[in-house]
Amino acid sequence: MNQLIKVAFVCTLLLSSTSHYLFAQEEADDEESKKVVPIDAKYTTEISTLAKKPAVQSAFKLFTDWEPQTKKTLITLTEIPSPPFKETERAKAFAALMKEAGADSVWIDEVGNVLATRKGRSGRKTVVVEAHLDTVFPAGTDVKVKQKGDTLYAPGIGDDTRGLTAVMTILKALKQTNIQTDATILFVGAVGEEGLGDLRGVKHLLRPGGPKIDSYIAVDGDGYTNITHRGLGSHRYRITFKGPGGHSYGAFGIVNPHGALGKAIYHFTTEADKFTKEGVKTTYSVSVIGGGTSVNAIPYESWMEVDMRSESPEKLKGIDALLQVAVQQALKEENAMKRRGPDLTVDVKLVGDRPSGRTEPTTPIVQRAMAASKFLKGEPKLNASSTNANGPFSKGIPAITIGSGGTGANAHSLKEWWLNDKGVLGLERILLVLLAEAGY
Amino acid sequence: MNQLIKVAFVCTLLLSSTSHYLFAQEEADDEESKKVVPIDAKYTTEISTLAKKPAVQSAFKLFTDWEPQTKKTLITLTEIPSPPFKETERAKAFAALMKEAGADSVWIDEVGNVLATRKGRSGRKTVVVEAHLDTVFPAGTDVKVKQKGDTLYAPGIGDDTRGLTAVMTILKALKQTNIQTDATILFVGAVGEEGLGDLRGVKHLLRPGGPKIDSYIAVDGDGYTNITHRGLGSHRYRITFKGPGGHSYGAFGIVNPHGALGKAIYHFTTEADKFTKEGVKTTYSVSVIGGGTSVNAIPYESWMEVDMRSESPEKLKGIDALLQVAVQQALKEENAMKRRGPDLTVDVKLVGDRPSGRTEPTTPIVQRAMAASKFLKGEPKLNASSTNANGPFSKGIPAITIGSGGTGANAHSLKEWWLNDKGVLGLERILLVLLAEAGY
Repeated sequence: MNQLIKVAFVCTLLLSSTSHYLFAQEEADDEESKKVVPIDAKYTTEISTLAKKPAVQSAFKLFTDWEPQTKKTLITLTEIPSPPFKETERAKAFAALMKEAGADSVWIDEVGNVLATRKGRSGRKTVVVEAHLDTVFPAGTDVKVKQKGDTLYAPGIGDDTRGLTAVMTILKALKQTNIQTDATILFVGAVGEEGLGDLRGVKHLLRPGGPKIDSYIAVDGDGYTNITHRGLGSHRYRITFKGPGGHSYGAFGIVNPHGALGKAIYHFTTEADKFTKEGVKTTYSVSVIGGGTSVNAIPYESWMEVDMRSESPEKLKGIDALLQVAVQQALKEENAMKRRGPDLTVDVKLVGDRPSGRTEPTTPIVQRAMAASKFLKGEPKLNASSTNANGPFSKGIPAITIGSGGTGANAHSLKEWWLNDKGVLGLERILLVLLAEAGY
Repeated sequence: MNQLIKVAFVCTLLLSSTSHYLFAQEEADDEESKKVVPIDAKYTTEISTLAKKPAVQSAFKLFTDWEPQTKKTLITLTEIPSPPFKETERAKAFAALMKEAGADSVWIDEVGNVLATRKGRSGRKTVVVEAHLDTVFPAGTDVKVKQKGDTLYAPGIGDDTRGLTAVMTILKALKQTNIQTDATILFVGAVGEEGLGDLRGVKHLLRPGGPKIDSYIAVDGDGYTNITHRGLGSHRYRITFKGPGGHSYGAFGIVNPHGALGKAIYHFTTEADKFTKEGVKTTYSVSVIGGGTSVNAIPYESWMEVDMRSESPEKLKGIDALLQVAVQQALKEENAMKRRGPDLTVDVKLVGDRPSGRTEPTTPIVQRAMAASKFLKGEPKLNASSTNANGPFSKGIPAITIGSGGTGANAHSLKEWWLNDKGVLGLERILLVLLAEAGY
C-alpha cells in the first residue's frame, strides 16, 4: 500500500469512527428489534440446569482465574497485524494457541481459516464456534496496544481479537474441566469477515461439499446481551461509464460519462425511493463518485460505488435489479444524446455480496442465547447485522452472533478500545449456549 | 503548491496535451469559420501602400536583423516562471525590456499588468497591442529552454512568451525607425489570461473609468494567418451539495448529496441538450465530479465542475440559467425524498466568467488583418477562441487576436515547443495592422 492510499485510508477511518461497535449503529430505525420476544420456559430451565453442573461451575471459575493470562494473549494477538487478505501470521499464532488449548486436531484450510476440533461423544452433529481473524486495518497501521487505566487501546482489539481469545478460552476450559459434548465442536478463526473480505472465510467453510454444520455461533462484538439473529445482506457495486473524452468545446457532441452517471443516479434513486418505502427495511446509498481531469475537458470516465442492504434476500434482489435497469437506461439515454463519436460503454462490477437471511427468534439457538443472557442478569437484545452469521443464515443453518464480553467502542477506527468490564459473563454465555446446542 | 497537487497537475497537463495550439482544437465543428469572407479592395490597397513606405521597409529589415537578439530575449523571458497569479517577476523583466525598447513611459498597474505607451501625433485614439504574461504552469515547473535543431522546447515558450517578445520588438522597431502614428499606442503585458486567471488583466484594463481604448490587437498563438474575431465566452461553476453524512444502513433516510448531484446532472443535461440543438454553437460539459469517503457511508458532500461556452452572450446566459434551475430543482427533489435529518444545502460558486462577443469580419481591424495576411502570401483564417480579445469584444471595442509568427505546438503541456519558421512574417503582420489602425 503506497503512502497516498495509506493517508486516504487513515482519513476514512477517522471519519467513519463511530460511538460504539458498528452493529449498534446498524440497529437504528429497526422496528423488529423493538419487539418483545418471549423466552420459552424450557430454555430457561435448560440453561439454569446446565449452569449448575459442577464442571460448568469449574469452567466459570477458570474464566475468572485465567483473566491475567487471557489479557496477555489478547495483547499478543492484537499486536500481530491482520490486514484484509493478509491474515496468515495471526492465523499461525491462533492455530498454535488452539493446539496448546487442547484441540483434538488443528489445521489451516485452503483460504486461511484456522479450524480446530473437539470430538463429540456421538459426533452426529457439528456445532461451530467462530471468531474472525481479519481486521479492517491496512498493513503498516500501528497495532501496539496502549493501556490507560484498565482500558486497552488498539486497532482491532475488540473487533474481533477479543473474540479469538474467547474462542480459545472456551476450548481450554472444556479441556481442563473434561466436559464432553455429544456433538463435535468445530472452533474456527475465520478470514475475510470485514469489508472487501466479503465473508470469504465463512463462505468457504459453508461451500458445497464442505463439512456438515448443524449450528453456528459467531463471536463478534462486546457484551453478553446482544444477539444477532438476522443477517443484513448487502450488494456493493463499482459502476464505471467510459467514453473517448475530449475538449469541452472542440469535442462537444461526444458522449459524456458524467451525463450517464447522473442519469443512472436519477433513475435509480427515484425508483429505489418508492421500492424501499414498504416491506422489510432495505437501504441504498450512492456512496463514492469520481472521474474527470480538468474543468475544460469532457471526462473519459465516470464511476460510482453503490451500497444496498436488506435482511430480505428478495428485497435485496429487487433493489439490485432496479440499479441494473437504471444503469442500462442511463447508458441508452446518454448514447441517444450523442451527436458524434463512439458510444459510451459501462462496466458493472460486483465488489461485495453478503447474503441475507435469519434464524427465527423461536429457534432453540436464539432462545438459548436469550435465556443465557437472562440467567446472567442481562436483558437480551435481538438485532440485525452483517456478520459471519450471514453465511449460515443464508443456508438455513441455525445461527447467532453474540459478543465476547466486556465493553468496547470505536471499532473500525484507530481509537478502538476494549475494557474488561465483567468480560467473563460473555464467556459464560458462549459456553452455556454451546453446551445446550452441542448436548451436555 | 504541495507535492500531491503538483502530481495531479502534471498528470492533467500530460492528458490535455494537444496536437496544436488550443484554439486550433476549438475551431472544430465551427460552421462560421468555414465561410469565405471577402476583403474590401481599399484594405488591400491600404496595406500594400503602408508596406512600401521606406520606414516600414526598414522595420521589416530590422525584424530579420534582430532575430538572434529576439531569440535570446525569448529564452530569458521563458525561463522566468510566470505561474497563474504569480506573474510579478516576469512583469518586472518585461517592463525593463519595454523601457529599453524606447517606450515613452512604462508602469505596472494595480493588478500587475505592464503598460507602456508610445504617444501618438494627435493621441485622439488609443490602440492596444498586448500579449499575456502568465502561463498555465505552476511554480516549480521546469521552464528551462531546451533546443533540438532549431526547435525551442519549454513550457510557455509559445503561449505566450513569444507574444511578449513580439510586442517588445514592434515597439523597438517603431522607435528605431522613428515611425510616428496618429493614435497613441498602449503596449500591454497582461496578467491572468489563462484558466482561473479568468482574463483578470484585460478585465481590469477595460474597467469603467479605465483608459479609453479604441482598438485592440491581442498577440497570442503562432503563425501569421489565423485571426480570432469572435470571443468564445465561458461560465464555469463548482457546485457542492452538502448533507450530514452517515452510515449507509444505520443513517438511511437522510439526504444523499450524490442523489442531488445525479438529479442536477439529469435535469441540466436533458434541458441543455435541447437548448444547444439550435442557434449559435453553445456547449456544456460536466467535467469533474467527486465526493464520498467509503462504500458503506452516505457522503456528506458531492461536487461537480461544469463548463459552458458560447460565442453568443445570450446563449451563454440561457444555458447558465438552465444549470441554476436544474440545481435548485435537484435540491428540492432530494430534500423531498428525505425521511429524517436536516435538509441538503448547495453552494454554487462561479469559478470562471469569460465574456462572449465578436468583431464583425467587415470591421476595418479584421479586414486589415486579412489583407496583411494576404499581402504576406498567407491565406487568412477567421476563427473563434477564448483569448484576451474576449474583453474588448464584449465591450464593443474592435479587436482581434493574431499570432506572433513561427510555428508551435503542445501549448498547455510540458512538451510545448516553438520554431522560428518565418517568424518575422508574424511581426510584419502585427506592424501593418497596427499602423493601419493607429494611422500612419
